[in-house]
Amino acid sequence: MIVEYKGDYNWDNIDVLAYKENGTNFKSITRQVLFDGLDDIPCQLRYFEVQEGGYSSLERHVHVHLVLILRGCGQVMLGDTIHDVKEKDIITIPSKTWHRFRANAKSPLGFLCLVNVDRDKVQLPTAEQLSELKQNPSITEFLDV
Amino acid sequence: MIVEYKGDYNWDNIDVLAYKENGTNFKSITRQVLFDGLDDIPCQLRYFEVQEGGYSSLERHVHVHLVLILRGCGQVMLGDTIHDVKEKDIITIPSKTWHRFRANAKSPLGFLCLVNVDRDKVQLPTAEQLSELKQNPSITEFLDV
Repeated sequence: MIVEYKGDYNWDNIDVLAYKENGTNFKSITRQVLFDGLDDIPCQLRYFEVQEGGYSSLERHVHVHLVLILRGCGQVMLGDTIHDVKEKDIITIPSKTWHRFRANAKSPLGFLCLVNVDRDKVQLPTAEQLSELKQNPSITEFLDV
Repeated sequence: MIVEYKGDYNWDNIDVLAYKENGTNFKSITRQVLFDGLDDIPCQLRYFEVQEGGYSSLERHVHVHLVLILRGCGQVMLGDTIHDVKEKDIITIPSKTWHRFRANAKSPLGFLCLVNVDRDKVQLPTAEQLSELKQNPSITEFLDV
């Protein structure tokens, strides 16, 4: 089966969805589900796009993310460090690691994200966990911009 | 962890490997292993690049391939049909389906290919199976060019 790319980061017969059903922990981000698992590949492949100035949830979970940047550049928070990311960089987000993507480089940030189809729910930080993360000035800067 | 893209379809600290250890069923193709499975993602992500005029093995197997074209364009044989493919098209190769990629559009053809880490060996066609496939003129043309 072929899912044809139609240009402008859209694929034939793939809906552009809201990022998540609820929550206010993110900004200006859409989701497309490109593959939903088959036989011995128990994984879902999604394409997320963050508009300039937007960001994904600050979250952690037991399941792992495998990410490939497909469009533009920006930054990712991985645990207690911030990294610049650009097209075709590959990012592994290990289990239980706080993370957020941010389109803060004057461009949209689009990325493929692979997860197991059967995964645990995301955990958002409590006020106490957020305060702990913000002990690190570079994290405070990243989160508050 | 971040695997940084270095340009020209190379990634930092990722070796460019020969396609396969043995066999003559392919031409002008290299392989890079970008991810080798972690926790609940039991999958390996590879980047294959076929130079202009080259092609991947004509093969089938029980395991599934999830492919995303990352560079250039070409064609893929999927079972008994030939499809044009281009950047960002997504191709699912179902179990037990004969397939081959071909860089026959005056450009290299580079693609990401996701497989289960634990998978069966590929099967190459016997003379009899090849003859059966070639009953279809478009397959004959694709295979013999």
